[in-house]
Amino acid sequence: MTSYKRMVLASRPQGEVVPANFRLEEIPVPALKDGEVLIRNHFLSLDPYMRMRMEDVKSYAAPQAIGETMIGGTVGEIVESKNPKFATGDKVIGMLGWAEMGVSDGALLRKLDTRNLPLSAYLGAVGMPGVTAWYGLTQIIQPKEGETVVVSAASGAVGSVVGQLARQRGLRAVGIAGGAEKCAYVVNELGFDVCIDYKAGNLVADLAKATPNGIDGVFENVGGEIFDACLARMNPFGRIALCGMIAGYEGNPTPINNVSAFLKMRLTMRGFIVSEHMDLWPQALTELGTLVATGKLKFRESVAQGLEAAPDAFIGMLKGRNFGKQLVKLV
Amino acid sequence: MTSYKRMVLASRPQGEVVPANFRLEEIPVPALKDGEVLIRNHFLSLDPYMRMRMEDVKSYAAPQAIGETMIGGTVGEIVESKNPKFATGDKVIGMLGWAEMGVSDGALLRKLDTRNLPLSAYLGAVGMPGVTAWYGLTQIIQPKEGETVVVSAASGAVGSVVGQLARQRGLRAVGIAGGAEKCAYVVNELGFDVCIDYKAGNLVADLAKATPNGIDGVFENVGGEIFDACLARMNPFGRIALCGMIAGYEGNPTPINNVSAFLKMRLTMRGFIVSEHMDLWPQALTELGTLVATGKLKFRESVAQGLEAAPDAFIGMLKGRNFGKQLVKLV
Repeated sequence: MTSYKRMVLASRPQGEVVPANFRLEEIPVPALKDGEVLIRNHFLSLDPYMRMRMEDVKSYAAPQAIGETMIGGTVGEIVESKNPKFATGDKVIGMLGWAEMGVSDGALLRKLDTRNLPLSAYLGAVGMPGVTAWYGLTQIIQPKEGETVVVSAASGAVGSVVGQLARQRGLRAVGIAGGAEKCAYVVNELGFDVCIDYKAGNLVADLAKATPNGIDGVFENVGGEIFDACLARMNPFGRIALCGMIAGYEGNPTPINNVSAFLKMRLTMRGFIVSEHMDLWPQALTELGTLVATGKLKFRESVAQGLEAAPDAFIGMLKGRNFGKQLVKLV
Repeated sequence: MTSYKRMVLASRPQGEVVPANFRLEEIPVPALKDGEVLIRNHFLSLDPYMRMRMEDVKSYAAPQAIGETMIGGTVGEIVESKNPKFATGDKVIGMLGWAEMGVSDGALLRKLDTRNLPLSAYLGAVGMPGVTAWYGLTQIIQPKEGETVVVSAASGAVGSVVGQLARQRGLRAVGIAGGAEKCAYVVNELGFDVCIDYKAGNLVADLAKATPNGIDGVFENVGGEIFDACLARMNPFGRIALCGMIAGYEGNPTPINNVSAFLKMRLTMRGFIVSEHMDLWPQALTELGTLVATGKLKFRESVAQGLEAAPDAFIGMLKGRNFGKQLVKLV
């Protein structure tokens, strides 16, 4: 290969993301300098955080630059190496973005062991989404046996792990997801105690029925009315891990109305970014890798084919059309 | 005295509290049983938490019963004792409610030392409001020298202590209060770095000017748009002690709109009730008492005369018409 495709940010979204915000380019494969490696990406991870980076606003990270390759996590294989730490054929995870290939000096690459785990799992349950679930649950919600935890976007890459880890710790795990099919999967395959279909239109009543002893922990991925409904059911000293508010990413306002619950129930809420807690990744990945390898932690993937399909897959994920971890297969 | 006056809850407020929600009664002084003491109350404390207790809703404490003496903290003097732990003339603090006298078995009474501190101070800076300020600042905001803390209701019983303790710990203390007179007091008498008059109509711009390095900690007493304005100025890893939301106590909705700040800035917010942290009261009261006795912690009182004046004083406090700690003098 002498050239490869990449997807750049063509323009910032005005409200909802549209395909025209992206542009596909074909660029030459560069010659490697000493210390560099060339990677052929096998999978690109699509994650909600990318939506925030497309905005030019003050946040935890610099915005994605216009005209540059869209940021993103990737797994792939070394196809050429001028770095003694990496050999051709090594499987690696990195942040090479929405691109079929990439060059790295190795600093942010990590070699992967694919003997017991599929390569794509390192972008999901045994990667950033899994560690996000692990961190929010164990470090912020700090669950105690017998408590009830509620997880929104329960069939997604993060939510699915939250509920399974909670069940393994002796908690009642209540999921919230969109549609009967996702809810059936959350209960029957992932083993949540119950899953509420927020699209059924009875969110408040269904949540009350699903949480007879109230709610002790919320792992929030969505925000908006789903979050407000949870706040109204919180027990004293409840904990809220604020991981995402995908309901608001497209510019929709997502106010919290039940603010007084924080006072009346002495709640704690903490927003977090998992990349700021690298010290805990080894511990989390050890638990997650072991659980996946032994079949005790299940996950599901939505796989789009080819870089050309990435914008539509990303837009669909923001609308909840994906089912499980959203990936793009690049080879 | 063979009888005394008390104020009972006549009806629950529908929206704003009105005088008709209270009823003054004259009742006979009861005969003491063994172990009991009779107390003549000198001061009644009026505090925002009472407003929440007037509602019949799920909260951290049972609602105030209709027809019963309004709850409230009091300081007074033992006038008769059948309890060996208390002698006539002892000064005590207790929760005897909106009443000129009261009977106690002594369990919830604490003897007060009035040699270096005025009796009323035990209901303010060296009492529940002072400990509330101390707890929220030291345990939740956990201030570091050089940081900026913002306090709403800054001239009030709690807010005034927050800012002074913050200054003593080397922080920039920014107050928010209603009116030029209160703001002048907050800066000139209490020593805050700056105080913003939210009634001046430039809250967002004034707050930006007052917090050139952003906000690291918020001690929230008010809620609503003041809180939202603070959220928009938070620095990464900011902490919010949610002590009260007086803006919403009269049934007004006080949504948070800047919810995404929690995520973008990885904020922590915790609601708290100081009576649940009795283990820290001795430490807090030692610091507060020493500071007041040595003139390093200042406070101001609004004193209504006589139990008959309590409802109007309480209603005025909810509207921000008081200036400093609101008390009712009962002798």
